Amino acid sequence: MSRPTPLSGYPEWLPAQRAVEQQVVDELRRTFELHGFAGIETRAVEPMAQLLRKGEIDKEVYVVSRLHADADAQPESDDRRLGLHFDLTVPFARYVLENSGKLQFPFRRYQIQKVWRGERPQEGRYREFCQADIDVVGDGVLPFHHDIEVVEVMAEAMSRLPLPPLRMQVNNRKLVQGFYRGLGVEDVAAVLRAVDKLDKVGPDAVRAALVAEGHSDAVADACLRLAAISGTDAAVVEEVRALGVHSDELDEGLHELATLLDATGGRRGTVQVVAALKIARGLDYYTGTVMETVMEGYEQLGSISAGGRYDALASDGSTTYPGVGISFGVSRTLGPLLARGVLTGSRSTPSAVLVALASEEARPQARAVAAALRARGIACELAPAAQKYGKQIRQAERRGIPYVWFPAEATADGAPAVRDIRTGEQTGADDASWLPPDADLRPSVIQPDDEQGE
Amino acid sequence: MSRPTPLSGYPEWLPAQRAVEQQVVDELRRTFELHGFAGIETRAVEPMAQLLRKGEIDKEVYVVSRLHADADAQPESDDRRLGLHFDLTVPFARYVLENSGKLQFPFRRYQIQKVWRGERPQEGRYREFCQADIDVVGDGVLPFHHDIEVVEVMAEAMSRLPLPPLRMQVNNRKLVQGFYRGLGVEDVAAVLRAVDKLDKVGPDAVRAALVAEGHSDAVADACLRLAAISGTDAAVVEEVRALGVHSDELDEGLHELATLLDATGGRRGTVQVVAALKIARGLDYYTGTVMETVMEGYEQLGSISAGGRYDALASDGSTTYPGVGISFGVSRTLGPLLARGVLTGSRSTPSAVLVALASEEARPQARAVAAALRARGIACELAPAAQKYGKQIRQAERRGIPYVWFPAEATADGAPAVRDIRTGEQTGADDASWLPPDADLRPSVIQPDDEQGE
Repeated sequence: MSRPTPLSGYPEWLPAQRAVEQQVVDELRRTFELHGFAGIETRAVEPMAQLLRKGEIDKEVYVVSRLHADADAQPESDDRRLGLHFDLTVPFARYVLENSGKLQFPFRRYQIQKVWRGERPQEGRYREFCQADIDVVGDGVLPFHHDIEVVEVMAEAMSRLPLPPLRMQVNNRKLVQGFYRGLGVEDVAAVLRAVDKLDKVGPDAVRAALVAEGHSDAVADACLRLAAISGTDAAVVEEVRALGVHSDELDEGLHELATLLDATGGRRGTVQVVAALKIARGLDYYTGTVMETVMEGYEQLGSISAGGRYDALASDGSTTYPGVGISFGVSRTLGPLLARGVLTGSRSTPSAVLVALASEEARPQARAVAAALRARGIACELAPAAQKYGKQIRQAERRGIPYVWFPAEATADGAPAVRDIRTGEQTGADDASWLPPDADLRPSVIQPDDEQGE
Repeated sequence: MSRPTPLSGYPEWLPAQRAVEQQVVDELRRTFELHGFAGIETRAVEPMAQLLRKGEIDKEVYVVSRLHADADAQPESDDRRLGLHFDLTVPFARYVLENSGKLQFPFRRYQIQKVWRGERPQEGRYREFCQADIDVVGDGVLPFHHDIEVVEVMAEAMSRLPLPPLRMQVNNRKLVQGFYRGLGVEDVAAVLRAVDKLDKVGPDAVRAALVAEGHSDAVADACLRLAAISGTDAAVVEEVRALGVHSDELDEGLHELATLLDATGGRRGTVQVVAALKIARGLDYYTGTVMETVMEGYEQLGSISAGGRYDALASDGSTTYPGVGISFGVSRTLGPLLARGVLTGSRSTPSAVLVALASEEARPQARAVAAALRARGIACELAPAAQKYGKQIRQAERRGIPYVWFPAEATADGAPAVRDIRTGEQTGADDASWLPPDADLRPSVIQPDDEQGE
């Protein structure tokens, strides 16, 4: 075949780049597990009827069908047809209902999987991409402290990643809806929709839209003043109260937001948790806390991590399962950084050592050295051929392998030696005890523009 | 929605079962990386034209299409249509060609991903399943020692898994084809096909088929005598020579097989590498070494790990890329063991500790204890509610969490304590220094029928 070309919207990475993605996934998983979130995987397909329930997404769903369906079978009805999942929330809700009798509630789970959407590809927006979700789901009830938990866990997880500073903006639907209702607004959803466009169209256009929908200038102004409020502590609550609007729902939302800020507000390493009362998460069915995260310098990617509280993640008629969760867009975040070369891996192989060969006949001895190193957790590979040592060193160099192990035959003093090919420093070494520095054991994440690296 | 039911052929696991699968994947990955195999992932879809090149599989391919393709677009031609990959070899070959200028050869990669086939579901055969592949691919040439390498690496990887004894059967296409040609057979593929059915139909039916195809009784007998030979060392070569057949290709195959057995033959923990001259790997395009692995007591699953040498894994017209690789069927192997309850995880959460609460107001102090434990790598979760301690202990019990951490308020001596709820043993503990035994840090794999566990 001739040389194939990439498929737009389906990013793939070279080994050194994949090493970065793998480390990010490992770090996310480690944090989620430290907090007692259990990993699950769900199948890639769901019945189309399930996928289309969420609305607004039907154009983006990929249908899956057998190339040659059995000739005598009826064409499959829409209900029976399968499609690729476009997020991890719909399959998780189905999994909870399907297995509710076998799960312990509150159920904490994480899920790191590919999802598919037929969107027009652009930077950070792919047709196949990886998401990392955490959710806590309750059986009938789910206390508010789980809202705090998911914000805390995702902020901690993201703060451990090699990323630019992140701003996790939090808000509360009860606060916003209660405020609008306190203003006398009846069609709360319409106002939410209008204010949700604030960042795109600016305050004047939002004000005009609200007035065009029949709201008074005073109401439109109050909505915009609410949306302008942000901060990392309870001062946010005072600012809202100063607007002089009252409702029970608003009070409940303010109390929840204040509680959340009290526990999580402020900076944790590279991640700042901040209330931003303009955040609404569009038309998603959130009912309380909502979160949306932007990466500094990459605001054009939109939200890289978002979520919120659903009072009804799932329901089987007799029991309702409330949930709160947040998703991190692994591909959306890393894709642009890897593609631009902002991040890369230090080498294209896990090997820390290339074991050189004196001759092809010496391969079994070299295998024994490699086995001794591997038994102590040191990844290594043998030189592919017993070429001149200079060529074997270049084999290591081209892969970014930091050390070359020389057999006794190759050294002046007739004893095995290991050379750091970055510095040229060579020392005698015993395969039963030598260890590279921790930083060289695995490929590391490099930020080429950053003098300090990582 | 009403309670959903599982989709046949799309296995999903409960958290404790998924913990087993995750540990198996981690262990495979660890071994592959220790041997210098770089992890990559390829997209789930390939152009249909690529997927159908391999032949014989067209009925099993899933086509992927947008639910609402743009109205003004032409219907997609077969070449442009996308399908889900049915193995990891076709996408890897395409990846090598696409990135050949950016890869270092010989290129070692592992790939652990889901694949999809529209097969009729049965035990161990799924429509969506996970495979773990290793391959080494060369640029023009690939020395035979890489055949040894992939057998060694996969045998080592499998020997570290919590599985029944495995038998990896190896053979060599050159040996078999050279033998047939030495007998004067012209349509070697037809004889391969007939002998490949030996395990299913028995020797008499194979002999009848060969004779029906025009071969003499002597030729049919020689083919069957070759197929009956097996062993773990070079005695196998002597047995073949004793059949009195000669050809250069046979000699080359015998030399390769003897070299492979010399390096890898025999037992490594639970895995035995043994020559079995009946193994042909059907119609796959292997050209030298072939391998096929069965799990003792689960022979009806067929091969759980198989592979071989391709002289042309990929070619772009000017360069040919030979490869040798082997695949391990993660789902095929674990699915039946998990479904039958032969293997399960020791708990349904990563948490080793549940931190109990004296009151809801004490949640911040409990969070501080949990944070101190997590900082030292101990996964833990807080009690969901400040119920009576007996209820909090049962929360831990139901999840299989081995330890409950009690605040000072809950203990007789007024100091924090940790209880092993399996034994009831309770000791005073400091969150800055207490550690559980290593075996309790993570969920472990349990073999319920096995008194010793793992």
